[in-house]
Amino acid sequence: MTDFLARHRATLDKALDACARRHSWTAYPESPSSKIHGEEKPAAGRARFEAMLGTAYPLQQPGEIGRTGAELSPYTGEPLGISYPKMDVGVLYEAIAQAMPTWRAAPADTRIGICLEILDRCAGQLFENAHATMHTSGQSYIMAFAGSGANALDRGLEALAYAHKAMADVPTSAQWERQFGKGGAARLEKQYHLIPRGIGVVICCATFPLWNGYPALCASLATGNPVVFKPHPSAILPVAMVTDVCREVLAEAGFDPNLVSMVADTREEPATMGLLEHPATAIVDFTGSPSFGQWIERHCSDKLVYTETAGCNSVVIESTDDLPAMAAAIAHSLCQASAQMCTSVQNIHIPAGGILAAGERVSFDEVAAAIVAAVEKHLENPQVLCGTLVDEAILKTIERYRGLAKHSGRLLRDSAPLDYPDFPRARTASPLILEVTEAARDLYRAEIFGPVSFLIRGDTIEDCLRDATTNARERGAITSHVYSVNDTFLERAVNAYHDAGASVACNLVGMPINFAAAYSDYHVTGLNPAGNACLTDLAFVAGRFRIVQSKRMV
Amino acid sequence: MTDFLARHRATLDKALDACARRHSWTAYPESPSSKIHGEEKPAAGRARFEAMLGTAYPLQQPGEIGRTGAELSPYTGEPLGISYPKMDVGVLYEAIAQAMPTWRAAPADTRIGICLEILDRCAGQLFENAHATMHTSGQSYIMAFAGSGANALDRGLEALAYAHKAMADVPTSAQWERQFGKGGAARLEKQYHLIPRGIGVVICCATFPLWNGYPALCASLATGNPVVFKPHPSAILPVAMVTDVCREVLAEAGFDPNLVSMVADTREEPATMGLLEHPATAIVDFTGSPSFGQWIERHCSDKLVYTETAGCNSVVIESTDDLPAMAAAIAHSLCQASAQMCTSVQNIHIPAGGILAAGERVSFDEVAAAIVAAVEKHLENPQVLCGTLVDEAILKTIERYRGLAKHSGRLLRDSAPLDYPDFPRARTASPLILEVTEAARDLYRAEIFGPVSFLIRGDTIEDCLRDATTNARERGAITSHVYSVNDTFLERAVNAYHDAGASVACNLVGMPINFAAAYSDYHVTGLNPAGNACLTDLAFVAGRFRIVQSKRMV
Repeated sequence: MTDFLARHRATLDKALDACARRHSWTAYPESPSSKIHGEEKPAAGRARFEAMLGTAYPLQQPGEIGRTGAELSPYTGEPLGISYPKMDVGVLYEAIAQAMPTWRAAPADTRIGICLEILDRCAGQLFENAHATMHTSGQSYIMAFAGSGANALDRGLEALAYAHKAMADVPTSAQWERQFGKGGAARLEKQYHLIPRGIGVVICCATFPLWNGYPALCASLATGNPVVFKPHPSAILPVAMVTDVCREVLAEAGFDPNLVSMVADTREEPATMGLLEHPATAIVDFTGSPSFGQWIERHCSDKLVYTETAGCNSVVIESTDDLPAMAAAIAHSLCQASAQMCTSVQNIHIPAGGILAAGERVSFDEVAAAIVAAVEKHLENPQVLCGTLVDEAILKTIERYRGLAKHSGRLLRDSAPLDYPDFPRARTASPLILEVTEAARDLYRAEIFGPVSFLIRGDTIEDCLRDATTNARERGAITSHVYSVNDTFLERAVNAYHDAGASVACNLVGMPINFAAAYSDYHVTGLNPAGNACLTDLAFVAGRFRIVQSKRMV
Repeated sequence: MTDFLARHRATLDKALDACARRHSWTAYPESPSSKIHGEEKPAAGRARFEAMLGTAYPLQQPGEIGRTGAELSPYTGEPLGISYPKMDVGVLYEAIAQAMPTWRAAPADTRIGICLEILDRCAGQLFENAHATMHTSGQSYIMAFAGSGANALDRGLEALAYAHKAMADVPTSAQWERQFGKGGAARLEKQYHLIPRGIGVVICCATFPLWNGYPALCASLATGNPVVFKPHPSAILPVAMVTDVCREVLAEAGFDPNLVSMVADTREEPATMGLLEHPATAIVDFTGSPSFGQWIERHCSDKLVYTETAGCNSVVIESTDDLPAMAAAIAHSLCQASAQMCTSVQNIHIPAGGILAAGERVSFDEVAAAIVAAVEKHLENPQVLCGTLVDEAILKTIERYRGLAKHSGRLLRDSAPLDYPDFPRARTASPLILEVTEAARDLYRAEIFGPVSFLIRGDTIEDCLRDATTNARERGAITSHVYSVNDTFLERAVNAYHDAGASVACNLVGMPINFAAAYSDYHVTGLNPAGNACLTDLAFVAGRFRIVQSKRMV
């Protein structure tokens, strides 16, 4: 058998170092540019994606009882026409049970090596994954290559590094010797074994199918747990391709490919509850809506549950030394991936009395106008930045908030379809921006999925900060931003967000502020309703295995 | 402020080393012998205990609304006459909320240092703790000094070492720099903060009040969480004394003493549910009955729950090279602390056809007789080994199983009161031993609290192993033993127990087989119904804090 760990040891070591120092590092370059990859690879990836359209995806899993899948491309409006196995979960789980003992007994290093090889091979299919992600999740090509591709692979490697750390903390054996009273001497040889929990179900979301997919896969599989992927019905293909790679590598390494499988479904015939309710499901990794995430946290008390959901991410603007740069940074978040990211900004709190910008007093309306203008600027070439809408329902959401603006605020910027020359039928919407006061807090305290945002006129900057941090505490936040040139205020704001269980970014400009860096940013705090788990800390991995020991007198 | 970490740094380093190598080490000698301690210390400890009898325990906590406590000595049958604050949990929790921010903001090293000082001062009161434990939990003096004293302190230090490791894994800051596309460069300074979960409630058991008390205290307090002890109504004093030390050290170090408090109660007016249901309770550490433990696991899904309960610990006897030594080792477990330990053996599986002992065929009855004889031998001087019964109800349990023996098996050894010259009114019972077959499995598959055990006649050794491991899987096991001179069988038995989620000890003789060594034995696997948490692994500590970060563009 190939020694996969030896092959990828340097990558693992660099990841461990990056996790410790939390500097900027990547194992998987995020640019799809042909300057890096040449002309052939991108074209081959596209061709491989196109060849899959209209076919039966060749995933051979035990318990197939038919075909399922009804993905539609948000770019073309056409069905992908790809079918996936429809699974009998009972039969599949029996096959998985057969596969578990050998995997459990394999040395941790063997399992880590196999996960590294899986990540490496997935890196080799980033181009077809980009097209698959575009035409399911609706991301732009560049975002699909990076966000649910290379960046997600980095998060997977990061989780693997932590799994390695947690497992390496347990020695395999020990010698133990002591006296008990007079004459009672004991010499024991002890052996310690890592025991996985059981089947890990990984529920992937529609917009970034692999963002939590790779980390959950690596965290569970490396610690000995089989993984069952449950893709979102509208984004199955990217998950199927990873499942395929996992099964291929496992089989090559002499293990049962059923250690990783996929249960696909459609919205009409959902399969998730059957997995959640199965007694052999021991771990659940969930990315998706706050309501379902919280339901799982509450009702799956017999399982280990790791959730990442969403909140109402906020910006508090106290002052800035560069209004256009700040406005551009915030506007970028309102546009990027049509604000369908878990890190997208929704609520922008600005004091009614305006702010100081480069030392000059600037009114609320001027700040609002700067942000709206920056959005217009970003929309000059929207296809790369905005992508499409993953779900038809988002158009209804936009319509609803447009209507609410009449009674509860002011429409600062209306949403409209975007024009993509390559995809005339693309499902798109530019940002809808409402101006409101705290009187409309019932509106903006929910997570609104899609390009709807609020400029919230607070009475004072302290009201802005209080409102934003209260909402983070009570409704969740994954990212939070503060802009201020005042160190005292910044410190107060950072503490207020931390008190609310939220992380915070200060004065970010000139970069995509939605960006969360693997190996450096602890993603999701677990302290507010936007999720209970962090990518990645020791707690994300340490509970996925347990320790049994044997001791023997010698 | 004293630098407590500097004072105890060498102890922490040795504990970290012991956790890594898992060799035999202790920071707190377990013998109360005056050869080690001199004459004065033991006498002073006893005097301090006696001075507390009949007094109002001087614990000054906010929210006191009266007095409570109704402890009775199992040695004398007399009330201790000590009263403790009866608490208004709402008022207490408000005071704790006041104390939290400063503690949270303190560096991890400061909190670790304070915990080390607490353990050190508790080590200084091991003699009074021994008397307090005797006259509440009913342990013998020697066991009370060691088991719920020095050995428990070691487990606390072990938990502290793991808390240190988990927190040290998170750097305090990082520099992060990268390019975003053309011209988009970002330099960020990042800071990472550890945030505790909230109030940790530590529910202590009646028999070993501090066995999980110290580890839970250290794990929660070191990671920033306030701790509320909830002692068992029959064993409050040992917990009150620790609470006192914690409050004293915290106050000396300039922190709010309310970071550690105690809510005592009586059986008639229990206070536990008020703590479990309080929304500010974020962590629950529980030691006690399997039924209540499982209730907490199921119903406190919004809290982190760590349980250690009990199971039906087994011995499987296949063969031995020293029948008397084996019988003595098993009998010791049946007698020690009147089998009220979580590691006490209950079910002894022996094949009907007998076993090979030193190469000779020995019948089932001969093995049984050897064990019964070894019990008689241990009972020649019972006071040190057996102690007393913590609860009157255990006498009823014994009576019940004596009755059941008529229909469901054979009484191999009857239970009777033990004679303690120093304590003529001591509540005692010698081991009751029943011989049964698998037909009586409903009887022995429950955890029976107290000195009731079963010699179970299995059809074959494979039946013995199957029965024992099935019970471990379905009903829980904290310790399991196998005796065999056959390496093939031993390996099969070890694997079968591991498959059942149980640890196993092979051929232990000449030492107390109930003994679990801090820094070496992972205590409780979390894989069977006898508890979900392990003393101590990374998972025991890693979830008790979360990470928030701030990043700032520079």
